Amino acid sequence: MRVLVIGGDGYCGWATALHLSNRGHEVGIFDSLVRRHWDAQLCVDTLTPIAPIQTRLQRWKDLTGKEIDLFVGDLNDYPYLEKALLQFQPDAVVHFGEQRSAPFSMIDREHAVLTQANNVIGNLNLLYALRDHFPDCHLVKLGTMGEYGTPNIDIEEGYITIEHNGRKDTLPYPKQPGSFYHLSKVHDSHNIHFACKIWGLRATDLNQGVVYGVLTEETGMDELLINRLDYDGVFGTALNRFCIQAAVGHPLTVYGNGSQTRAFLDIRDTVRCIEIAVSNPANSGEFRVFNQFTEMFSVNDLAKQVQQAGSTLGVKVEVKNLENPRVEAEDHYFNAKNTSLLDLGLEPHYLSDSLLDSLLNFATKYKGRVDQSQILPKVKWRR
Amino acid sequence: MRVLVIGGDGYCGWATALHLSNRGHEVGIFDSLVRRHWDAQLCVDTLTPIAPIQTRLQRWKDLTGKEIDLFVGDLNDYPYLEKALLQFQPDAVVHFGEQRSAPFSMIDREHAVLTQANNVIGNLNLLYALRDHFPDCHLVKLGTMGEYGTPNIDIEEGYITIEHNGRKDTLPYPKQPGSFYHLSKVHDSHNIHFACKIWGLRATDLNQGVVYGVLTEETGMDELLINRLDYDGVFGTALNRFCIQAAVGHPLTVYGNGSQTRAFLDIRDTVRCIEIAVSNPANSGEFRVFNQFTEMFSVNDLAKQVQQAGSTLGVKVEVKNLENPRVEAEDHYFNAKNTSLLDLGLEPHYLSDSLLDSLLNFATKYKGRVDQSQILPKVKWRR
Repeated sequence: MRVLVIGGDGYCGWATALHLSNRGHEVGIFDSLVRRHWDAQLCVDTLTPIAPIQTRLQRWKDLTGKEIDLFVGDLNDYPYLEKALLQFQPDAVVHFGEQRSAPFSMIDREHAVLTQANNVIGNLNLLYALRDHFPDCHLVKLGTMGEYGTPNIDIEEGYITIEHNGRKDTLPYPKQPGSFYHLSKVHDSHNIHFACKIWGLRATDLNQGVVYGVLTEETGMDELLINRLDYDGVFGTALNRFCIQAAVGHPLTVYGNGSQTRAFLDIRDTVRCIEIAVSNPANSGEFRVFNQFTEMFSVNDLAKQVQQAGSTLGVKVEVKNLENPRVEAEDHYFNAKNTSLLDLGLEPHYLSDSLLDSLLNFATKYKGRVDQSQILPKVKWRR
Repeated sequence: MRVLVIGGDGYCGWATALHLSNRGHEVGIFDSLVRRHWDAQLCVDTLTPIAPIQTRLQRWKDLTGKEIDLFVGDLNDYPYLEKALLQFQPDAVVHFGEQRSAPFSMIDREHAVLTQANNVIGNLNLLYALRDHFPDCHLVKLGTMGEYGTPNIDIEEGYITIEHNGRKDTLPYPKQPGSFYHLSKVHDSHNIHFACKIWGLRATDLNQGVVYGVLTEETGMDELLINRLDYDGVFGTALNRFCIQAAVGHPLTVYGNGSQTRAFLDIRDTVRCIEIAVSNPANSGEFRVFNQFTEMFSVNDLAKQVQQAGSTLGVKVEVKNLENPRVEAEDHYFNAKNTSLLDLGLEPHYLSDSLLDSLLNFATKYKGRVDQSQILPKVKWRR
């Protein structure tokens, strides 16, 4: 299949593009490269030295003989988007091309506006381009488990059947997102659902958990193919961040009491989930929602596991509870369903000591690149 | 109280501004006047000749001695918004200042993007301005009953208590909006809810039904205070549109089979509902949702009532079922709650023959201004 990966220069996008290419799909990458620009603006950098996208793709071709088309442009540049789609002729579009950090969206008004305008309008543009030129193309859109928040009932996959006053209906699952970034994904989901209904588009919304890990089969082939790994207070996510903190002897930064529970998955499962979604397209008019994660952990669980992995490697790891910069429930119920992707054949990589060991070793290898001043969270949710 | 009415030059906004002023509140109007510009661009016009906003306000002052401050500017111009708020010092802000037509948002990609960018970012700007300068100010935001769509269960006011797998929670009511405009209101609701939670803002989201009627106590005082009345296929809403069609001898344009049921209210109740909301502010941190309507009718009900009113006036009214330009359920369950505003003292004006007679007479008075070529719907939802 011909698969266009929007945001294919990013953490999940890059690993996905290579994986799909390796599996025999014809892959294109569409990316504005603005994430590299935001890193520069915020004065943060990935732990791992990532090569320019052109170099990455050349290396991939040299190693595997597989060519990945590159479209450097912005979803918000509609004429360019149309041109790229018409040139590439996709059977599926995987859309990672959004501002994806909650703290980034909470820096100030400008960053909140940037996040929602960039994400919502970019996604709207994509919907219109598919309607006008590729109405049968399957849109695989990255959402987030954070769209659901932490309701006191089980989280279903996108929809919930409600009995109320003697009647019954299956409705979109209520959303309680926790940042202007997470809100942008909720807005996207509503817009896509509507586009499927009125135009007969086919879409799969993947509500992804927090991704950890750095190596996939493909990105591990060569140092020029290395994936980004963020540890800073804006783009770094739990677990990846903890491993790097452990490697440089920084206390693990647990926000609040650490009871917050979230859904997680290994990046090797991210790429596999996307492949599964691409290979099993939604029906015309269908807005399909999968919860894309393999396990649930509290932040304290993660900290404890990193501590244990550290001790087997002789690294002493401290944990520090910081005042929570976010507004979020800390002690709460959390139980989410994730059977759809398992039913389609996902075989999870569960979090294990060996993964943590390798992540810690990886972090240790590059620890000279860590800027300790970027580790603590600087963005606060409260006014 | 000092009340800033954003969008105070529009249909509901103008009537509201005068009503609040008449009731003794200190009122300001903040409006970009872009709606008059859109009318010009689309080559449509209100049935009633509306005076420039400055003339309207001068006439109001001459008649009543009451001054209404005017701020001509755009919510998307953040420095101007800040300046206006700091100058006016509001106790409450009533936010009507959005693109409010479903067909307008469905014209093409540009109009969908315009609608969502204008509405969502304008509202985000307002939230930030309140956070930074007036965190205790009460935001009264106009939503729409169209946010709910037509679920097969009763529609509650903003939230629903769900029992699921033996647990229970009260969650935001699931939304199934039917146009990119209605979607923008859903996005707004999610954003405001979040802002209340993290910043302690106080907000009331008024999910308003379809408004009909033209005269309020205040706009009827003088022809220079006359309110707009839209009948065209883009901005004209059911009932108002039907009365004008009847007056000019055009068949009533029922979309589809006419079984679609919606919530309605008289514009005299709109202004009263706003006053009730303003006088009973939400608590700090509270995102309060009221369904603002008084009656439910199917489109066929409305057409029949206009036919009857016409026959008492000796006007023969035909009804024509057009192919539905929208994608919407026609035969569906619809039962929405609206007790909150009634409990706070709303005394509804129910749709009656006398209202229809006066609306028909009003339409007849201005029928020379009708451009028949603008009556039929030109915007289609399907691709």
